Amino acid sequence: MQISQSELQTRWQKIQQKIKAEQADGCLISTNVNLLYALGRVINGYAYLPAEGDALVFIRRPEGFSENNYFYISRLEQAVDILKEKGIAPPQKLLVESGEMTHEDWLRVQKALQAQEMRNATTLLRQVRSIKTPYEIEQVRESARLQSLAYTQIPTLYRSGMTDHEFSVEIERNARLLGNLGIFRIFGQSMEIFMGSVLAGENAAAPSPYDFALGGAGMSSVLPIGHSGKPLQQGNSVMVDVNGNYTGYISDLTRTFSIGKLPKEAYFAHDVAIEIQNRLAEMGKAGAVCEDLYLESLRIADRHGLSNCFMGLSQKAKFVGHGIGLVINELPVLANKAKDVLQENMTIAVEPKFIINGVGAVGVEDTFIVHKNGMERITSSPQEIIDLEK
Amino acid sequence: MQISQSELQTRWQKIQQKIKAEQADGCLISTNVNLLYALGRVINGYAYLPAEGDALVFIRRPEGFSENNYFYISRLEQAVDILKEKGIAPPQKLLVESGEMTHEDWLRVQKALQAQEMRNATTLLRQVRSIKTPYEIEQVRESARLQSLAYTQIPTLYRSGMTDHEFSVEIERNARLLGNLGIFRIFGQSMEIFMGSVLAGENAAAPSPYDFALGGAGMSSVLPIGHSGKPLQQGNSVMVDVNGNYTGYISDLTRTFSIGKLPKEAYFAHDVAIEIQNRLAEMGKAGAVCEDLYLESLRIADRHGLSNCFMGLSQKAKFVGHGIGLVINELPVLANKAKDVLQENMTIAVEPKFIINGVGAVGVEDTFIVHKNGMERITSSPQEIIDLEK
Repeated sequence: MQISQSELQTRWQKIQQKIKAEQADGCLISTNVNLLYALGRVINGYAYLPAEGDALVFIRRPEGFSENNYFYISRLEQAVDILKEKGIAPPQKLLVESGEMTHEDWLRVQKALQAQEMRNATTLLRQVRSIKTPYEIEQVRESARLQSLAYTQIPTLYRSGMTDHEFSVEIERNARLLGNLGIFRIFGQSMEIFMGSVLAGENAAAPSPYDFALGGAGMSSVLPIGHSGKPLQQGNSVMVDVNGNYTGYISDLTRTFSIGKLPKEAYFAHDVAIEIQNRLAEMGKAGAVCEDLYLESLRIADRHGLSNCFMGLSQKAKFVGHGIGLVINELPVLANKAKDVLQENMTIAVEPKFIINGVGAVGVEDTFIVHKNGMERITSSPQEIIDLEK
Repeated sequence: MQISQSELQTRWQKIQQKIKAEQADGCLISTNVNLLYALGRVINGYAYLPAEGDALVFIRRPEGFSENNYFYISRLEQAVDILKEKGIAPPQKLLVESGEMTHEDWLRVQKALQAQEMRNATTLLRQVRSIKTPYEIEQVRESARLQSLAYTQIPTLYRSGMTDHEFSVEIERNARLLGNLGIFRIFGQSMEIFMGSVLAGENAAAPSPYDFALGGAGMSSVLPIGHSGKPLQQGNSVMVDVNGNYTGYISDLTRTFSIGKLPKEAYFAHDVAIEIQNRLAEMGKAGAVCEDLYLESLRIADRHGLSNCFMGLSQKAKFVGHGIGLVINELPVLANKAKDVLQENMTIAVEPKFIINGVGAVGVEDTFIVHKNGMERITSSPQEIIDLEK
């Protein structure tokens, strides 16, 4: 990812609109994802964006930047003097990432900058990040292209008698060889996962502490999510939902495979998932309300008598889609009571999934771009259930 | 990881000693690593440990726990009523993980529990975690055993003409097939890495924003750490420092390989690294001061005329070792001004490393257990530089 100065300027202006709307003096950014957004790179330090003008970067590591808006500091207190030297008033009303930075870090910023007021910028920055620039759209498209390619190769990685863990490891390796960056950034400090989840058979219904669409017991209580180490068995569905981070911008793609033939109800539910996804793509015009898409997915599941197994069995995910970008769970969320309105150039993953008793999970997930007339699917591997034994 | 009730009781008592020393009423735990420590599992919710008695678990997800100290809640406010029902006074002086939880979460806890005072438990809990129970020691030993096995297999994964990325991917796959959990938990929200680092040639000297022993440019500015995608070349050293998380408890192991023969000064510096490690293992008796070990490593490097390339070139790591456990960077740190005293059953990674211009990184890292008479090395693959072309 090499980011031009004009791309960064565009992003700064988007953030500055929020700063002005909040009547704040500036925004101090210190968490990796927002630094990546504001600077195009991770640094150890802070990016300070005043309501007008260029970002100032107060950096501790790495050494070697000579850009004239980069200032090496050892303590944040030095930033105040640098601002004054540049003729910029130190902020009185300051936006900070209170929803992401630790309480101790928040206190440290307060002590160093002595702003009269510090307000939470976390949601504002997530809102800014939710609408992609043309450059960002290209990055998501490139991830989607490579992830789709990786997924079309999945059937070649299967060997009879594999465990779900072994299958996952080969899928991980193949993705990595195609350039997958591995790291899976997530919003929310209690969320964690390695490379994604490969859910086979009964394990698909195992409830998890995390807020992903489905769970899985995991290999250990140490990381209770995803595959559980059991052999893949005849009559299992195998749902693959693994990392699409090829460019820093994550695309999201889920496909369902089978070991041999599945019972009829599995194919039926899978087709309903595709019907839901198609319908939401059609509804998902700029201006649509997120909640309406979610409620429509419930209605379609219900119409086909599949409410009880939609998005889990007893523990259900309460959403059917979500924004994606630098993290896997960007805004907005397609969920109950989500009043957010879809806007052009949002990137959204839509993931209707069902759990079929004795079989496993079925359904699809694809990545979409919101346009005036609906959502464009940019992940492209075949949607049907592919029999790995064939 | 299946953890017995008596093991958990032992851990609770260790935390309760800190609670009492702080004259606090209890400690509320909400971050994954400390939940894993206190409950043996990750949940979405809180563990509340009063100064005396069993932990109470206020849980949102996953469903299905029937233990009588587990209480399902939707809002933390309900915890107050549950405490009262159990005859436990809601805490007035409360310890919370202020160094890990977000500022917004801190405010939420304050509002829900209305404690008179909330103090930072982050360092206290890290201190508790730094001294392992016999059960935990067994978990670290098992990770060390499997990681050592994985490392002895590394030469079989090499093929001439590989890039550092391809080599890393095969090392990752092999570790995963041996049961590596993949996830790499780190203390400090700005720290991130995927499976570790494979540093070849000049890339070993590339400075990184993160606080690891060495850096590397990474594949992209999106994740500026570790291998950079270049072909492995004749005369390169290849330093492998990848994830040892096989049990939830991470062991830490670095080995240096070569593509063909290296210049004499590389083998010399490598031998000095081993000398430093042996000397620190001998000095590292229970009661030794961490700073003294660090200063001794500087003295030995200096005595051999290698100060300028010890722990990096211009950007240097300011430590030579660190605690390990549920995260890769537990307490204590072997660093300048670190007055912490080594105690029996601490687990410590010691990683003296040098950068040789035009060659790459050399050195070793091993995992040790602190005993009365010194540190016991529990990682066991051969320490010499192995030529991958042979």
